[in-house]
Amino acid sequence: MLHLNHLRLGARRLPSRLMSTKFTSVEINDKTGVAILTLCRPPVNSQNAQMLRDIKSSIDEIENNKSKGLIITSASSKVFSAGLDISEMYKADKEKLSTLWTELQNVWVALYGSSLPTAAAINGHAPAGGCLLGVACEYRAMLPKCVIGLNETQLGIIAPEWLVFGYLNILPPRVAERALTQGRLFTTEEALKEGLIDEIVNSKDEALEKCQNFIESFDKVNSVARSLTKMQFRAANIKEFEKNRQKDVDDFVSLASRPEVQKIMGDYLDKNKSKK
Amino acid sequence: MLHLNHLRLGARRLPSRLMSTKFTSVEINDKTGVAILTLCRPPVNSQNAQMLRDIKSSIDEIENNKSKGLIITSASSKVFSAGLDISEMYKADKEKLSTLWTELQNVWVALYGSSLPTAAAINGHAPAGGCLLGVACEYRAMLPKCVIGLNETQLGIIAPEWLVFGYLNILPPRVAERALTQGRLFTTEEALKEGLIDEIVNSKDEALEKCQNFIESFDKVNSVARSLTKMQFRAANIKEFEKNRQKDVDDFVSLASRPEVQKIMGDYLDKNKSKK
Amino acid sequence: MLHLNHLRLGARRLPSRLMSTKFTSVEINDKTGVAILTLCRPPVNSQNAQMLRDIKSSIDEIENNKSKGLIITSASSKVFSAGLDISEMYKADKEKLSTLWTELQNVWVALYGSSLPTAAAINGHAPAGGCLLGVACEYRAMLPKCVIGLNETQLGIIAPEWLVFGYLNILPPRVAERALTQGRLFTTEEALKEGLIDEIVNSKDEALEKCQNFIESFDKVNSVARSLTKMQFRAANIKEFEKNRQKDVDDFVSLASRPEVQKIMGDYLDKNKSKK
Repeated sequence: MLHLNHLRLGARRLPSRLMSTKFTSVEINDKTGVAILTLCRPPVNSQNAQMLRDIKSSIDEIENNKSKGLIITSASSKVFSAGLDISEMYKADKEKLSTLWTELQNVWVALYGSSLPTAAAINGHAPAGGCLLGVACEYRAMLPKCVIGLNETQLGIIAPEWLVFGYLNILPPRVAERALTQGRLFTTEEALKEGLIDEIVNSKDEALEKCQNFIESFDKVNSVARSLTKMQFRAANIKEFEKNRQKDVDDFVSLASRPEVQKIMGDYLDKNKSKK
Repeated sequence: MLHLNHLRLGARRLPSRLMSTKFTSVEINDKTGVAILTLCRPPVNSQNAQMLRDIKSSIDEIENNKSKGLIITSASSKVFSAGLDISEMYKADKEKLSTLWTELQNVWVALYGSSLPTAAAINGHAPAGGCLLGVACEYRAMLPKCVIGLNETQLGIIAPEWLVFGYLNILPPRVAERALTQGRLFTTEEALKEGLIDEIVNSKDEALEKCQNFIESFDKVNSVARSLTKMQFRAANIKEFEKNRQKDVDDFVSLASRPEVQKIMGDYLDKNKSKK
Repeated sequence: MLHLNHLRLGARRLPSRLMSTKFTSVEINDKTGVAILTLCRPPVNSQNAQMLRDIKSSIDEIENNKSKGLIITSASSKVFSAGLDISEMYKADKEKLSTLWTELQNVWVALYGSSLPTAAAINGHAPAGGCLLGVACEYRAMLPKCVIGLNETQLGIIAPEWLVFGYLNILPPRVAERALTQGRLFTTEEALKEGLIDEIVNSKDEALEKCQNFIESFDKVNSVARSLTKMQFRAANIKEFEKNRQKDVDDFVSLASRPEVQKIMGDYLDKNKSKK
């Protein structure tokens, strides 16, 4: 069962309410008030339009429930999220591409702009859209021997400007420019060194615990003041994002439709098919 | 006597002119041209409207005297400055709150935008408005085992945008966002590690000496070119500050007037009263 | 012969096409596609208007040839480039100053905004305009025991805003503000520590090899996506640069014409003449 691993949680986080969409589950702990959003689209949580809608509605639910904080993690034991589902981009018409990107935008702005403390328990690989989810949060704990990064250029597409600015919230400009142009995937250890993640943990439980500790670090802080302060760092980027929403969709559609990019995607899908 | 400690200065800084306001003293060394502005409102240099006016007029005096540089320090042996005087915010009407914040703005822009080299000899704790004075300078030397930071969110208010940008001149964005949302006070040692201060010193005299060395590091530099270059880093923030001056006052008044924030302030004052 | 040292290149970079201007040479390797632009104005590659024009046309040639990447280096064994030729600024009329600065602007925007991967093999000292060439690139390898930095304030002029933003792409704001106000020259070792360069190398050949490796790190990346991503980091600065082009020239002419600045330049030239 997909959601079974949510039930193996320590006593500290019980009792809790459990809610699900097709590709996510949300557990809100009544005692601590912290919500855990789990990505559940096996095998690698690749993000198709439906999954992105599910993530978005889960974030909204947590936000509206006035939870104390949001932790995002994965039901898979090896992959946090593999990013956008390439099979949804390959030979896709413009409308399909446009929808996919719009849903991704919606997830980003909901998570990046959340008034709650947000933390990512990155229990596996997190390339591209997987990294995006981590970057949108305020804190990241990650398992060793995994990779994380915005490797879009390797696929012939680019990380959009709002995501670049998210990267720049975390990484020094020099490191960010090079990583984004190279499409670099950082190992967990490299990610810690550069500041892309905050902590290396040895298990998913430890990742969840560290995230919970991060959220509790705000216990003595006035939540209105906290959320206004968070927005001081993020509002300019969000405003710019909103201003360019449609152009950003058009740019993605145009880039992803290029024959050479479609070829890279086709090759990628073939290679992965033959691996099975 | 409050100002006595200014007189125990090495021969290097004598002869000097000594000028005072109610809550500050200014000593300009005729030989070196360096001015020392000392905060003198015992016991903890908490900033009320009068003290802020005094700091502002002292900065102006130093600027107009064409001093070679400005060092700011405290007459107290334990506290650099405890920040805004909470008793001036508690049960204060809007006009009083508005005046207090306007005076704080005036101090900020005079110090942050000074054409002179500026350095802070932080000889004690420097929370909130104490930290602000340090952040506005170009160099910071600090005594060990003290704390420094913008802990406004713990009080239910927020650091204004111009101060956030001042923090971002010094700290990496990731560190700054987390510190400001948490209302984090850094120990001297943590502050050095993150870059919030430049040097740990063992005495106030050593702090003053390091600050003097910093100011003398510009001896071979053309002062017009120096000051134009400093403004390249600070003018955008100052321009934005000037544009939003009134809105910034209104935001502070509105936030500080909230019943829940007034309650935090009242509790804080009670707690400190009972300590005595 | 000035260009002889280009011919002592390993087999890997042969066969190649060699093209020259008066003060530069360009070698494009047919096999690797990488172009090496060598500065050749002995003894110290000081940049007069003609040399800047030559650098600009060489960059354009490399860009138009659709080379795989651009490496910039020096024919001198001790100096990468000493920066603007002070004898062209001393007692120069406004038109001459204006021309010099315009050519420098042209070089900057061509190199900083190049769609290609760019790398600097800094085989000697790189003050002022020498540092500028390195900063405009994406990667820097440098010989030990040299100095690099924007030391303009020591001469009474200032680094223009577009160059300051280039510095801020590489250095933390706190380090950049202090270095620019002080006119600081970093030793190779300090430059590595702060991130101003990426690698210390022991010979020019090793520098070229590291630069080549950097360029080849993009082999698996789609070049359109790469170049769009690079521009995400640089377009805002370039746009601002274009907007203020003329004002920037006027500011330089006005600052460099000041009697006190002319005196510094005269003294500098005298000192260097008497050294010979």
